[in-house]
Amino acid sequence: MRTRDRIVDAAEQAIREFGIAGATTRRIARQAGCSEALLYKHFPGKEALFLAVLLERLPALGPALTRLRLSGGQGDVAANLKEFALAALEFYTRAAGIASGVLADPSLMTGFRAMLAETGSGPHLPILSLAEILRAEQRGGRLDAGLDAQAAASMLMGACFHRANLSYYVDLPEADETWAAAIVGTLVRR
Amino acid sequence: MRTRDRIVDAAEQAIREFGIAGATTRRIARQAGCSEALLYKHFPGKEALFLAVLLERLPALGPALTRLRLSGGQGDVAANLKEFALAALEFYTRAAGIASGVLADPSLMTGFRAMLAETGSGPHLPILSLAEILRAEQRGGRLDAGLDAQAAASMLMGACFHRANLSYYVDLPEADETWAAAIVGTLVRR
Repeated sequence: MRTRDRIVDAAEQAIREFGIAGATTRRIARQAGCSEALLYKHFPGKEALFLAVLLERLPALGPALTRLRLSGGQGDVAANLKEFALAALEFYTRAAGIASGVLADPSLMTGFRAMLAETGSGPHLPILSLAEILRAEQRGGRLDAGLDAQAAASMLMGACFHRANLSYYVDLPEADETWAAAIVGTLVRR
Repeated sequence: MRTRDRIVDAAEQAIREFGIAGATTRRIARQAGCSEALLYKHFPGKEALFLAVLLERLPALGPALTRLRLSGGQGDVAANLKEFALAALEFYTRAAGIASGVLADPSLMTGFRAMLAETGSGPHLPILSLAEILRAEQRGGRLDAGLDAQAAASMLMGACFHRANLSYYVDLPEADETWAAAIVGTLVRR
């Protein structure tokens, strides 16, 4: 196994066990069996390392968006969107530990924000991709053309992100499946 | 000024300055000019103290919900909902520092979750209140009766919560006002 992969694995495990504040580069390097100097050779900082965990070790949002795009024009729109909502819910639930750790640490957030700006990436981009997919379904006549696709995408992703966070605080009454079907239902109603 | 209020003020300031991980009871007590023992006489733990900051020092969601309820049946539904969405966005933006700090700290979250379960409260309750208000507008014929009020409330609150979090990571392209109007528009369209 390559050193880089061992470091990302060790970082993922450390975050799960100790929270992001406790996931020090010292602890991660020790667990990966390398020096802190070698860790910093692979990752310029904690921000880059945590981003690698997010992008490479979590159930990603990208594949779920790709599946939804490929299902465009086929099958039942509501069923496709519901499957996507459940995947987004799972992603946000697993990403919450890292995302909240970054947000709770002002200096880590400053570095993270600069890194995102430099690479032109960001956690808002999946909303834009989802809006594109909704527009394609509208052009195909499978989704109400009067719906604002951008706003609908904001609401669908936002509802999943919010629910993922809420589930850490309280036991939510409704099952995820029932909830996702109702959410999607507000978008596909005619 | 009562000791309790001085402690809550000091906690709010410490969280803003050092993040929740750096807002130690020692630092808060020193800033409030009291002993840690006295702090613990007023608050059984950091969880209770941080909840007090959330409930007593942030622009609250409660008053915004009350305003929306009182505007029921009057004025323009879309304008009322847009005003509420902007208030929710402001609340979630200011609450993000504490919420993420709690979520990022596994032991703090365990205590917080137990405290919420004991008091029957939780961050999901505003969704239920908003759904009740939407239902009243449906009964009054001012909102499409075919809309699932619970799902709509989930999406409106979720979109605000998500955007509040996104705004920490990236500069969002659209102005809040434009965004809120589009979000509300997907719910009030006929």
